[in-house]
Amino acid sequence: MALVGFGNVGKAVARVIVEKRDLLQKIGFEPVVVAVFEKNGSWIDENGLNLQEILQKGESSPAWVEGASAKEHIPEMDCDIVVEMTVTNIKDGEPGLTHIREALKSDKDVVTSNKGPLVLAFPELMDMAEKKGRILLYEATVGGAIPVFHVAREALLINRITAITGILNGTSNYILTKMTEEKVSFNAALREAQEKGYAEADPTYDVEGIDAASKLVILANGILGLRKKLSDVQIEGITRITPEMVELAMEDGYLVKHIGYVDRDRVEVMPRLIPRSSPLAVGGTLNVISLRTDVAEEITLIGRGAGPRETSSAILGDILHIHRVREGY
Amino acid sequence: MALVGFGNVGKAVARVIVEKRDLLQKIGFEPVVVAVFEKNGSWIDENGLNLQEILQKGESSPAWVEGASAKEHIPEMDCDIVVEMTVTNIKDGEPGLTHIREALKSDKDVVTSNKGPLVLAFPELMDMAEKKGRILLYEATVGGAIPVFHVAREALLINRITAITGILNGTSNYILTKMTEEKVSFNAALREAQEKGYAEADPTYDVEGIDAASKLVILANGILGLRKKLSDVQIEGITRITPEMVELAMEDGYLVKHIGYVDRDRVEVMPRLIPRSSPLAVGGTLNVISLRTDVAEEITLIGRGAGPRETSSAILGDILHIHRVREGY
Repeated sequence: MALVGFGNVGKAVARVIVEKRDLLQKIGFEPVVVAVFEKNGSWIDENGLNLQEILQKGESSPAWVEGASAKEHIPEMDCDIVVEMTVTNIKDGEPGLTHIREALKSDKDVVTSNKGPLVLAFPELMDMAEKKGRILLYEATVGGAIPVFHVAREALLINRITAITGILNGTSNYILTKMTEEKVSFNAALREAQEKGYAEADPTYDVEGIDAASKLVILANGILGLRKKLSDVQIEGITRITPEMVELAMEDGYLVKHIGYVDRDRVEVMPRLIPRSSPLAVGGTLNVISLRTDVAEEITLIGRGAGPRETSSAILGDILHIHRVREGY
Repeated sequence: MALVGFGNVGKAVARVIVEKRDLLQKIGFEPVVVAVFEKNGSWIDENGLNLQEILQKGESSPAWVEGASAKEHIPEMDCDIVVEMTVTNIKDGEPGLTHIREALKSDKDVVTSNKGPLVLAFPELMDMAEKKGRILLYEATVGGAIPVFHVAREALLINRITAITGILNGTSNYILTKMTEEKVSFNAALREAQEKGYAEADPTYDVEGIDAASKLVILANGILGLRKKLSDVQIEGITRITPEMVELAMEDGYLVKHIGYVDRDRVEVMPRLIPRSSPLAVGGTLNVISLRTDVAEEITLIGRGAGPRETSSAILGDILHIHRVREGY
């Protein structure tokens, strides 16, 4: 296995692997991490790195190789799974897109938390994986810890999934929840989200619905089998929502929520009125994803949409799924 | 495969198998059903029954064998999976308990929707399955269509699950929702539930929390690895809840919900105040199950807790899981 990207998510994955070594051993999985790549170089040891040491010593670990890049090393590396966790870039998908292409080309399975490559090149990457007989999993790209792709692919396999509805961005959900509970303006709620670290200095991606639309594209392609691009999504942000609108909705038993929706006819992210008693009416930074199916009816999943440790649950779920497929259990 | 029990759930499973034959074929699974057992006899054909014909013709189908019983035929039958769907009986677990024991003894995998045998004999049945190297799955026993055991066992495998909270009975949730929305008494809400077919003439199991407690026992044993019995659960029903209590709770932003809770210290089913914004605050006949984990934090699943077709999604999920394990994918 190789970890590509050693920011908050990469470090959380390394920490959980260290923390859960006994559990992993018990289920017959002893991960050997031969490389950890970050921007300026990498830690490399073909016999298996000591992740705890890397987490503690960083670049002063003896395994550190200044300047060694993932792009250059992935093709020749002797490892079975590449875990791509570099930062999302929805302009050109790089450097993640190249990492995933190189990994698949050189016959490695891929697990990724990086939305960029999937938003831009879902059909290409899936075709590439299929041709190579490799697995490409991406549970962590949507809904953080929520195992929605797993549920759709496995537990609900007998179902035809016909539509997906969800709150896919914790920041905008936090802002709308604050506006509802404290009757404050969008700007006041945004400032609070920024102070608490839930929103970036430039909150455009979150509040204009671009992040949610990216996730919706991955859900549409990964679960409904569509071939949607970001430009197919009709997007409306939450910046023009006023406390008055929120209050009026409340009087009628509704909440204003930023909802992503996709079926065979529509793909959209926009503010919508949701009945307070709906499973979609979750507050705070929570994410929710609801699958409309033809046998199980509506199945809804709720969880933390972000957070490095929570996200690592999804990444390790994917890694363990690949292990299970290989071991046949 | 053999279907044991041909009531609403058994028929729904047969219907979905017929309806989804193309999908099943596409994923490489062509179920051969060699026997369908009901109370007075069975349909038997070792070359595979025509389920559509049985659904249409019932006992006038040529495959019908009057008086042939599951108990007598399971041990000698040449089939790989026994699907036990007889009616739940939490007094002595019969006839389901005998069916499951006989199936495991004669080296068959088992899928069941029957709570009785698991509530009464979970450790015994699991030990028996393990010794025999067989699989015993029971997704449909709790939460209808909600794939909670699947999620806990597979997608969240890296997590330690430390507590489970949920609304496990749709009837009592419907009654409490009516009391909240229409400010009516328990008795008026119960009558409406009975008129709509959501509650039995004798609603004791539902409104006194015995059904929810049974499901909690299965969750405790199946997910937390405990060895709880029904008598370990502290149970309080909803019959003494008044519209005044519901109203007072509402004024403070809470809903009265009938909540099952289990961790290593407590197992209980009782009315509790849940914040309106909580993922647990679902209305109508919906069920909800929330898993507290050490990596993913809280993961919540919501869905239909009953309904033959919805339940068949869980049963077929289990059957397909066994197929996947065998085929190693």
